[in-house]
Amino acid sequence: MFQQFTIQAPLSAIDSELQQKIDNKTKPLGALGELEKIAFQLGKIQQTVMPDVSKPKMIVFAADHGVVAQGISLFPQEVTPQMVMNFLMGGAAVSVFCDQHNVPLRVVDVGVNAALDDHPLLGARKVAMASKDFSQEAAMTADEAARAIQAGVDEADLAIDDGVNLLMFGEMGIGNTCVSSCMMTALIGTSASDSAGRGTGLDVAGVSHKAKVIEQSLKRAEQETDQSMSDWSAQTLAEQVGGFEILAMAGAMLQSAQRGTAFVVDGFICSVALLFAQKIASNVREYAIFAHQSNEKAHKLLLEHLNAEPILSLDLRLGEGSGAILAYPLIKSACVFLTTMASFESAGVSDSTS
Amino acid sequence: MFQQFTIQAPLSAIDSELQQKIDNKTKPLGALGELEKIAFQLGKIQQTVMPDVSKPKMIVFAADHGVVAQGISLFPQEVTPQMVMNFLMGGAAVSVFCDQHNVPLRVVDVGVNAALDDHPLLGARKVAMASKDFSQEAAMTADEAARAIQAGVDEADLAIDDGVNLLMFGEMGIGNTCVSSCMMTALIGTSASDSAGRGTGLDVAGVSHKAKVIEQSLKRAEQETDQSMSDWSAQTLAEQVGGFEILAMAGAMLQSAQRGTAFVVDGFICSVALLFAQKIASNVREYAIFAHQSNEKAHKLLLEHLNAEPILSLDLRLGEGSGAILAYPLIKSACVFLTTMASFESAGVSDSTS
Repeated sequence: MFQQFTIQAPLSAIDSELQQKIDNKTKPLGALGELEKIAFQLGKIQQTVMPDVSKPKMIVFAADHGVVAQGISLFPQEVTPQMVMNFLMGGAAVSVFCDQHNVPLRVVDVGVNAALDDHPLLGARKVAMASKDFSQEAAMTADEAARAIQAGVDEADLAIDDGVNLLMFGEMGIGNTCVSSCMMTALIGTSASDSAGRGTGLDVAGVSHKAKVIEQSLKRAEQETDQSMSDWSAQTLAEQVGGFEILAMAGAMLQSAQRGTAFVVDGFICSVALLFAQKIASNVREYAIFAHQSNEKAHKLLLEHLNAEPILSLDLRLGEGSGAILAYPLIKSACVFLTTMASFESAGVSDSTS
Repeated sequence: MFQQFTIQAPLSAIDSELQQKIDNKTKPLGALGELEKIAFQLGKIQQTVMPDVSKPKMIVFAADHGVVAQGISLFPQEVTPQMVMNFLMGGAAVSVFCDQHNVPLRVVDVGVNAALDDHPLLGARKVAMASKDFSQEAAMTADEAARAIQAGVDEADLAIDDGVNLLMFGEMGIGNTCVSSCMMTALIGTSASDSAGRGTGLDVAGVSHKAKVIEQSLKRAEQETDQSMSDWSAQTLAEQVGGFEILAMAGAMLQSAQRGTAFVVDGFICSVALLFAQKIASNVREYAIFAHQSNEKAHKLLLEHLNAEPILSLDLRLGEGSGAILAYPLIKSACVFLTTMASFESAGVSDSTS
């Protein structure tokens, strides 16, 4: 049902040339730490020793979730369209950070539970007015799941056709931390209590309630599908407990990777989208740069599972792509050092005596 | 002998106004994590809810160290002037990152063991052609120590008189990781083996040799001063085991704080300069923003001692101020969110239901 993605791992033929260039820069071997790994990864993805991320784009996917009826979020659902307006008006965190770095921001409605007026920065790709409450029934139909993924694919295509060389993804959707925790449990089998976290600021009782809702929802879905969740296809998982903006992010990641373009993974929800994308085409992981480790406790587990080394660890728990845009200048610095720093030879600096 | 510094802790009268402004931004309470703490600190230092770091400056202090005669560094001493030239020509890591962020870079010679030609970006404040080998004799005279500190004071004054509102410090000097480890042991009593690290890339035997040189140097200095190092004044410590660029950074930090200006602490060597500055006037700590935790193992210990939460942890071990300039966009983001993000009221977003 889902479209096929053919994702090649980046070729290794350029590895030694890249490493040699990194090592000949005027610095002790390895002294730029994580930046050296990012420079290497970007060079390999772009198959050049002169990687370029000078044309980035931030795409924030927004949608609502029926499961908020179960009282799993501190904020009311009306905040989703309100925050979409805030993004468009330039007042949100992701807006002001995108402004700071001259990164264009686009907001894509894939399922906000409100009619949104046209706006030059808004992509109108609404699949439905929110997903269904998955504690009671499947979150969406097969067709809706496919359309949500396609929305992400189309957005990635738009950007890459326009010359974008680094995609950053963010999300907005009251309740989507709960949806992500549920998807994580379904995808890798962590317990609901390990997957569920504070979201926008739940207390201990709130987190415990959220974990119960997740457990019940997965039990309902296993009964309905007559399958253990570990046997679910990506398709079934999406239908049963998916969220539109999470599927759209996964689609955008898959298409970005299919077209050889690096993308930046924001926080917990975005990482779950990658985990889901991996279930569809595992090589997508090779194109992912991890922006940060968030304060959401399950994010640490998930990053370990993904064997990811995030750039930042600022105790953020905001979403919106805010961590991705904050990491952008450091990703750019990785390119800057690789492309513009002097080598020992060019600067006439003596190499180490070792 | 050293000049007196009168450093007031920033006033607390503005605290509640600042916290209220942070909490009313359109985000869950505390969701911007470390950035909220930096915004608060900058607002408090500048005594405004509209802090501004739009006029930063990077000053790299450079000097040589007699103790390199003991074979404690992987690179030969000639690399210090070579790297100074590399800074001035724009080829070093700190140069390209300063370019990336449009931050002016100045290099100040306080003791490079070579005659350096005039250059518009070079401050000529040479105290001597390198310090003495402190494993054999005192590193410098009282007059030299005072002049090194004064060089930093004068550089901070120049910048602040010019309207600079955020100072960043870096250093260059083959052997200065060893000098810093020695100063750290003298200042807070950590063992030489805990203070000594890999520097530019020493192996296990090299680090062990470095620790021995530090132990012997401190023993020599205790005998010569007829005092336990824990009883040394800042003055005595500087004379016995100081380094010119480290003292200059300390002087610049003290003057920056005395004039109410925030400054960014780079890696291990810069953190030792702050530790030394604290011995002269402890309130200097309140004006320090910690850029990163480096790969140099003693830096973790030192940051814990300083109760510091660094912004980045990228496994850097380069010095030069490279970590400080990499953290700059994030420090700016802290100001940007505080000054330009919408509030719940201004954006018409519903606050949490709690």
